[in-house]
Amino acid sequence: MSMPGPVSAQQMHFAEPLPLRSGAVLRDYTLMYETYGTLDATRSNAVLVCHALNASHHVAGVYADQPKNVGWWDNLIGPGKPLDTDRFFVICVNNPGSCFGSTGPMHVNPDTGRPYGSDFPVVTVEDWVDAQARVLDRLGITQLAAVMGGSLGGMQALSWTLQYPERMRHALVIASAPNLSAQNIAFNEVARRAIVTDPEFHGGHFYAHGVVPKRGLTVARMIGHITYLSDDSMEAKFGRSLRAAELSYSTQEIEFQIESYLRYQGDKFSEYFDANTYLLITRALDYFDPARDYEGNLSSALSRAQAKFLVVSFTTDWRFSPLRSREIVKALLDNRRDVSYAEIDAPHGHDAFLLDDARYHGVVRAYYANIAAELNA
Amino acid sequence: MSMPGPVSAQQMHFAEPLPLRSGAVLRDYTLMYETYGTLDATRSNAVLVCHALNASHHVAGVYADQPKNVGWWDNLIGPGKPLDTDRFFVICVNNPGSCFGSTGPMHVNPDTGRPYGSDFPVVTVEDWVDAQARVLDRLGITQLAAVMGGSLGGMQALSWTLQYPERMRHALVIASAPNLSAQNIAFNEVARRAIVTDPEFHGGHFYAHGVVPKRGLTVARMIGHITYLSDDSMEAKFGRSLRAAELSYSTQEIEFQIESYLRYQGDKFSEYFDANTYLLITRALDYFDPARDYEGNLSSALSRAQAKFLVVSFTTDWRFSPLRSREIVKALLDNRRDVSYAEIDAPHGHDAFLLDDARYHGVVRAYYANIAAELNA
Repeated sequence: MSMPGPVSAQQMHFAEPLPLRSGAVLRDYTLMYETYGTLDATRSNAVLVCHALNASHHVAGVYADQPKNVGWWDNLIGPGKPLDTDRFFVICVNNPGSCFGSTGPMHVNPDTGRPYGSDFPVVTVEDWVDAQARVLDRLGITQLAAVMGGSLGGMQALSWTLQYPERMRHALVIASAPNLSAQNIAFNEVARRAIVTDPEFHGGHFYAHGVVPKRGLTVARMIGHITYLSDDSMEAKFGRSLRAAELSYSTQEIEFQIESYLRYQGDKFSEYFDANTYLLITRALDYFDPARDYEGNLSSALSRAQAKFLVVSFTTDWRFSPLRSREIVKALLDNRRDVSYAEIDAPHGHDAFLLDDARYHGVVRAYYANIAAELNA
Repeated sequence: MSMPGPVSAQQMHFAEPLPLRSGAVLRDYTLMYETYGTLDATRSNAVLVCHALNASHHVAGVYADQPKNVGWWDNLIGPGKPLDTDRFFVICVNNPGSCFGSTGPMHVNPDTGRPYGSDFPVVTVEDWVDAQARVLDRLGITQLAAVMGGSLGGMQALSWTLQYPERMRHALVIASAPNLSAQNIAFNEVARRAIVTDPEFHGGHFYAHGVVPKRGLTVARMIGHITYLSDDSMEAKFGRSLRAAELSYSTQEIEFQIESYLRYQGDKFSEYFDANTYLLITRALDYFDPARDYEGNLSSALSRAQAKFLVVSFTTDWRFSPLRSREIVKALLDNRRDVSYAEIDAPHGHDAFLLDDARYHGVVRAYYANIAAELNA
């Protein structure tokens, strides 16, 4: 295992418009991205990692001047890690509409000269995949060794195999789903209502008012956070533990540790995340549904896929339950695709895909070792 | 089956203070209640029904002048129904702190001459049981044939058997739990944060401002509503159905039927329910935990109970899952109590306890028939 050097973010500017599924175009945009490892001479060892709701292009390593800002999937990706950057060249692109540097709602709309705000066009998983493909084009990468993502990132990985079936050998779809359930959409909708009904949302143009809809964004994040954790892990970590020795009998003061934790998570999130981005990304989740154009038949929808697949789910994930991953597996098998499926017995709910679980990481490590062997053959 | 006559609400005023678990007292208060059927000569056929979060004393029948205002448990309670009011005398009391007529946050605080608002004292399940006991005292009812409740009402029924173990022969605890889980508390906390951070909450004294924290209350109800329904029933009823034929690609307009339904539920609720009551009742839920004084040992806590029990749970209820009901059953069995347990295979989630399910109603009907036979013996 070699020592990783510090990483740095890069950007690409695109002057040619990006046509979006909504019919709108992104006229002119910049994408932030990071790479780790070295692209080999035949440009065959590239792995694209797709990020989920609240993550960025900073997927692994640390910046030279920010030693504590560790990439969000650093436990999985790096030298000697399951996705070994000594062997693979890893790329992660911050999606347009996000709030981590790529063109998004807080940037200036060239059509109006003021921040996009809620005028930023609705972007879909398919649009993000198109944007990522343009980055790969510029990098001269015709075919990926693999595309990988968890949760919403897994949806992007799946969509890659349908939009650009020739451009990857493998797809790793982790803790994901072929679409959102009614309950998933319901949670997203409540979160959005909390944001847009906050008076400081100002119809999505709060930047001009020097405020942010912090209250709404905090509540939105608290709702989301509950769905990321399993009932069991919340019970194990917090249970009914009180913050003080005695009850204070108050409706507004914190009594239980779980309240303290959730408020902290909500507050922290509301200080760095953009409210318009939250709306856009939850909507992209809602819309994703490759079977929509196939009368709901996922097997028909996935018939275009050519990649080999690793699908991973976690037993206690109730946001994207194993049942949803098995729908993907079945649809791939219906098409006689090469698919490996691992259902990991893990207590942490949806968040498990971000955690360092030995069985989970073992499966991913073995899968990438096979890809490496295939490339060497 | 006899025809039910119209019902009417009654009230009782109490001048003697009600001491509360918080240490505060309710100095002077009025309780709304309704009764159905006839108390027999030996006062032995009374059944007390306890209401849950958003319900009132209007549990069955209709008012003469409001033929569409049907009691919230009318499918279960009435002449010839599972709890047969031709045989039993049924009482339901609106709990203090509620917003349906009993003394609550919108009433005048005798200490200040203005509405209580957020100064209304925190009330607990135990306090409600004490208040209900005073109503029974006035009605001359020493011992109930049964006490029954669903959800939070089931917690009251359970608490009755611990606070007044001699005062009932039977307890029916339906879709309930011996306390809230961390996840349950978490959902309550998010709902409360949505309310108290609404600028129109005004620290709980919004009445004086002529406004209500409608936005917060709407979001709170939407969150709650998701937890009342099962994932399956939401999927069956709404799935990913769109409101229009084509996607409109908007983050704020309604796209999916489930969004329309939830917004409607939230709006409707925010028009009749009081925000301070919502805080109080969710807090009473959080606090309920009869095992707290027994180092978390529920079997020790329930050793005081003398009643015979019917415990009912519903397979798809993820708010108060069958596992939680089984904890109650086990603790009762540890004490060699007489307990019947029915786990009803029903698709509707927590809401199932309010619905007309043949197996569920059959169990309740049979149980009350046995109570009636016992009384006749």
